[in-house]
Amino acid sequence: MSSISPTARMANAIRALAIDAVQQANSGHPGMPMGMAEIALALWQRHLKHNPNNPNWPDRDRFVLSNGHGSMLLYALLHLTGYEGLPIEELKRFRQLHSKTPGHPEVGITPGVETTTGPLGQGLANAVGMALAEALLAQEFNRDELKIVDHYTYAFVGDGCLMEGISHEACSLAGTLKLAKLIVLYDDNGISIDGDVKHWFADNTAQRFEAYGWHVIRQVDGHDVEAVDAAIVAAKKADKPTLICCRTVIGKGAPTKAGGHDVHGSPLGAAEVAATRIALDWPFAPFVIPDEVYAAWSMRETGARAEADWRARFDAYRAKYPQQAAEFMRRMKGELPAHWSETTRAFIAGAHAKAETIATRKASQQTIDGLAAILPELLGGSADLTGSNLTNWKTAKPVRATEAGLQFGNYINYGVREFGMSAVLNGIALHGGYRPFGGTFLTFSDYSRNALRVAALMKARSIFVFTHDSIGLGEDGPTHQPVEHLASLRLIPQLDVWRAADTVETAVAWVQAVARQGPSCLVFSRQNLLFIQRSETQIEHIAKGGYVLRDWNEEVVAHKLIVLATGSEVELALAAIEPLARVGIAARVVSMPSTTVFDRQEADWREYVLPKGVMRLALEAGVSDYWRKYVGLEGGVIGIDTFGESAPAATLFEHFGFTVENIVEQARALFI
Amino acid sequence: MSSISPTARMANAIRALAIDAVQQANSGHPGMPMGMAEIALALWQRHLKHNPNNPNWPDRDRFVLSNGHGSMLLYALLHLTGYEGLPIEELKRFRQLHSKTPGHPEVGITPGVETTTGPLGQGLANAVGMALAEALLAQEFNRDELKIVDHYTYAFVGDGCLMEGISHEACSLAGTLKLAKLIVLYDDNGISIDGDVKHWFADNTAQRFEAYGWHVIRQVDGHDVEAVDAAIVAAKKADKPTLICCRTVIGKGAPTKAGGHDVHGSPLGAAEVAATRIALDWPFAPFVIPDEVYAAWSMRETGARAEADWRARFDAYRAKYPQQAAEFMRRMKGELPAHWSETTRAFIAGAHAKAETIATRKASQQTIDGLAAILPELLGGSADLTGSNLTNWKTAKPVRATEAGLQFGNYINYGVREFGMSAVLNGIALHGGYRPFGGTFLTFSDYSRNALRVAALMKARSIFVFTHDSIGLGEDGPTHQPVEHLASLRLIPQLDVWRAADTVETAVAWVQAVARQGPSCLVFSRQNLLFIQRSETQIEHIAKGGYVLRDWNEEVVAHKLIVLATGSEVELALAAIEPLARVGIAARVVSMPSTTVFDRQEADWREYVLPKGVMRLALEAGVSDYWRKYVGLEGGVIGIDTFGESAPAATLFEHFGFTVENIVEQARALFI
Repeated sequence: MSSISPTARMANAIRALAIDAVQQANSGHPGMPMGMAEIALALWQRHLKHNPNNPNWPDRDRFVLSNGHGSMLLYALLHLTGYEGLPIEELKRFRQLHSKTPGHPEVGITPGVETTTGPLGQGLANAVGMALAEALLAQEFNRDELKIVDHYTYAFVGDGCLMEGISHEACSLAGTLKLAKLIVLYDDNGISIDGDVKHWFADNTAQRFEAYGWHVIRQVDGHDVEAVDAAIVAAKKADKPTLICCRTVIGKGAPTKAGGHDVHGSPLGAAEVAATRIALDWPFAPFVIPDEVYAAWSMRETGARAEADWRARFDAYRAKYPQQAAEFMRRMKGELPAHWSETTRAFIAGAHAKAETIATRKASQQTIDGLAAILPELLGGSADLTGSNLTNWKTAKPVRATEAGLQFGNYINYGVREFGMSAVLNGIALHGGYRPFGGTFLTFSDYSRNALRVAALMKARSIFVFTHDSIGLGEDGPTHQPVEHLASLRLIPQLDVWRAADTVETAVAWVQAVARQGPSCLVFSRQNLLFIQRSETQIEHIAKGGYVLRDWNEEVVAHKLIVLATGSEVELALAAIEPLARVGIAARVVSMPSTTVFDRQEADWREYVLPKGVMRLALEAGVSDYWRKYVGLEGGVIGIDTFGESAPAATLFEHFGFTVENIVEQARALFI
Repeated sequence: MSSISPTARMANAIRALAIDAVQQANSGHPGMPMGMAEIALALWQRHLKHNPNNPNWPDRDRFVLSNGHGSMLLYALLHLTGYEGLPIEELKRFRQLHSKTPGHPEVGITPGVETTTGPLGQGLANAVGMALAEALLAQEFNRDELKIVDHYTYAFVGDGCLMEGISHEACSLAGTLKLAKLIVLYDDNGISIDGDVKHWFADNTAQRFEAYGWHVIRQVDGHDVEAVDAAIVAAKKADKPTLICCRTVIGKGAPTKAGGHDVHGSPLGAAEVAATRIALDWPFAPFVIPDEVYAAWSMRETGARAEADWRARFDAYRAKYPQQAAEFMRRMKGELPAHWSETTRAFIAGAHAKAETIATRKASQQTIDGLAAILPELLGGSADLTGSNLTNWKTAKPVRATEAGLQFGNYINYGVREFGMSAVLNGIALHGGYRPFGGTFLTFSDYSRNALRVAALMKARSIFVFTHDSIGLGEDGPTHQPVEHLASLRLIPQLDVWRAADTVETAVAWVQAVARQGPSCLVFSRQNLLFIQRSETQIEHIAKGGYVLRDWNEEVVAHKLIVLATGSEVELALAAIEPLARVGIAARVVSMPSTTVFDRQEADWREYVLPKGVMRLALEAGVSDYWRKYVGLEGGVIGIDTFGESAPAATLFEHFGFTVENIVEQARALFI
């Protein structure tokens, strides 16, 4: 028999799976799983409330591996604790095409993975979002002794996560909001890819987190299961979020490579793997785990019991509060409320009937007001631009922390933290129970861009509201005027981008975004936009992303031209119809509030809107290159291929050629 | 006579100019200039070493207004202290088209503005870069008693800057590197746009900065000039960067609006302006400053003296160290070294002669090695991916802090801080004396995107190295595989983007980037790329951004096709030539290492490379939409319009259709 204790052997099972899978893939990151094995054991065996038989039950604890390069740690944990969706065969296919064990953890691919991580720091911010969702849901739904929402959010983070700026944004917010059920375990191994972190990361991290109002537990031996366990026990009692600083040795167990940066992101190599097996007294073949180790790791019974306990509690809750119980389940499933179609259709028709000429950011606010009445799960916010983004609404109530902890609300003042906000939105969306949205200026989508990308990759139902969508913001000048942003957001796969031309398109964009199983950007103007009259059919067609707004005047015979426009440029396109007709050009005006949605339509629709062989001219106050996909090399684009300028909006539109005269001139040039 | 003291009247001159200019523009931010007037007075009158007669002399102190929305504060200071380039007429044209007083400060537009600010937090990071450049230059050039580099960097920051994640990245780095001559004045007014910051920003900021290793001066009354003065005196003595926390009242002086968030970003209105005039006992008409106030503010004599002192010191230095003096001046002017053209031409020819098949990131490292020999101003670094980006070189020496402070080096381990690194690069470039570059993975250009944008707006000579440029990075999977990034970077105006196909294009890209008066992104592969044989003329043509690599086989008569490709796809395009010929398609292969550079070439060149009317097929492992600008609606694009996958690179290229067979198939389809 081995002299290794059963507990140590359990931890070594993680190490063995990590080194074998990385070795087999000849690619991956063994150092972190080896260094965090005992921490993972303490958490996943003694605290984490999860059920391998049902990875998605509502009241499970959420676990986030923010240092996602250590994906094999998570796969090993899911496999060892008994997730059927992750058999050993999948671990053998680590990092291979279409396996359930991709290079970094991806939600939706692997059962038990709560969020997609790898881009550092974002997992931590997702965890803040999850803990926030839990705290709000608990206040909204729990009654008396019946706590149907009562779980923790745990995150593992490394030095990389804590160097990233997003860790500041998310953790400062978490501290301010007193998210007491957020527990973060810091793998303080002193090593990052370039070497010993002291040369570039000399922070007193404990002190930093205390400055955020966190509970900090210092100097925990990360290889002592009892010590980690005790820290988690203490963390659960705190009335603040907790950071547990665990001293660890990266790659622990590898005789020559432990403690160095080489072990971070490369296979150990056959010799070191063999030596590690000996050092750990792990005599088993690759991917072989002894039955007693599996048995010790299994959480199938414990997990089933935890879920059964909750179901019993939920049944009692349902008996007493049937409506709330049904509403809770609807919201956790992400289902739309009853009568969604009729109600939103009526709302859109109402917006059309009102025929208002207002800024689309204002139209957005009115839409939110309308939606809030039927969507209690709306959870709004802004990165400190509420009065500009108009993301608040009449019945919105700010989320506030008091001495007693977080108080319920449905509007979050995120502070000047665009990236943090966006990743928190993703965390809320992944947690379930809320439909989160957050606003900033379109230009500052740059700050949060990778969170939008990860949202798209995850198909997270986050809604990003971006106002001040062009040079139309005026005097704030080029630093604040988006030029390339619309086009560059449209390039992110699976992300929908809407830019509304008036109140009606605004309403439709919101309704589509709420209903979508994925993220959307809603882009609105600062300035007033003319209301556009439409037929009922045209109103229906907005949801197709691109549609015919005015068709050509058949009396004009010389030339046919399709004018494509979005947002504030649609009214300009409409204004050009008569002047174009006077020079012999019959124009069809196509409004394209969402190119990403339009591109998904059936070929018939696209051909109907943009028939082949007809000359085209695109009009958008942004970079022109993107529009070549619709106008080709022969067509024209009136766009902006430089930075903006600081001046009143009307001056700028004229300066950059957004005038009827220029449209006529450019259109005529197309037929010469 | 007024009972107001001359000093108070000087501060009130700032307030008056700010409220009048904002009122006249009917747009802008009066709150910050009114709140920071005394702080500005203390710094600009008693400490800041600057010469209004010559805004650009090398040893001036650098001043950064990181809270750039308070631009009128800076314009008022520059005007009052005597910058001739900023007469009162320009202040009257605040925020108007082509004035020297744009909405946010822009370097290059206004004399005395050191960097473009507005996007919050970045100015602070620029300041870190400037202080770092100063500290390194001082060690490199100062001799004995002759300190030709000896100046401070001051930054004003607000709550917004400190909420932004980039403040964490930049200030953590500044603390680690002990940048003792960086002095930051924090306008702690408790207000941000959404209201009282305590609800979303409850940090103990002083404690946070102490955790970064900063010297922190707490609780300074920001309206007490003597107190601010004393704090700056103390800061100058510290052996660490200093944060001076100044309690202020936003909009101080406005009788009813001071202290509230309404005063942040809107004109006061005529009534409040009038009331403010009375409250401040400022009886002068708008834009009128009494002569004695101008006289008290003028720094023309003091400034001239400061520069003269330095020039005398520099003359003594030049007498003793003529070579170093000449080198210092060359570097501060940003001039290329002698024999630049011949040396780099020889280096490129050498790279061609070596005919190596290596990863372009490796080729980049070899190029850096070559350039470093003639460019001592190269200042490299990586966001903790040195061994992956291969941004280091043989003679590189890391910048390290010791007990004695910063030690000279020419390589910066930036830590996992992409955004901070990029904005620090901009600060270094703006300071002058170094040509900074920094590396990360192309995907994580997302994290730093707005710093690239501001670099482009400023034409800052920063070089951004992005490796692992496609699905070719393999097993790390979709979170790490750029897909939309090449296209979306190309959309940023004034930013050059190079993606090299082999060693020779890599060398040319580097040479072009170093010589450019603006920023460039250099994009390199993880995997090996085949060396491509070229004629001498072809080597010359690389610098044009797009050129003919192989021309059509005239014997093939059926069809002509231009195949455009970049980076790793160029070798694939070349491999397809023969198979295409076999199916009757004569292909010209155009390599397009930089579309942004190609687009700037004369029409003749563009027409020669891409003659009108010839069918085109583009090939790039990224989103296809961008390529429509070259292939039109009729041409083809082999791209990737989804996220990547986790698998070995070779598997992925095949999976996504990057094969000769698919090229032939897609090409044939174009002629059916």
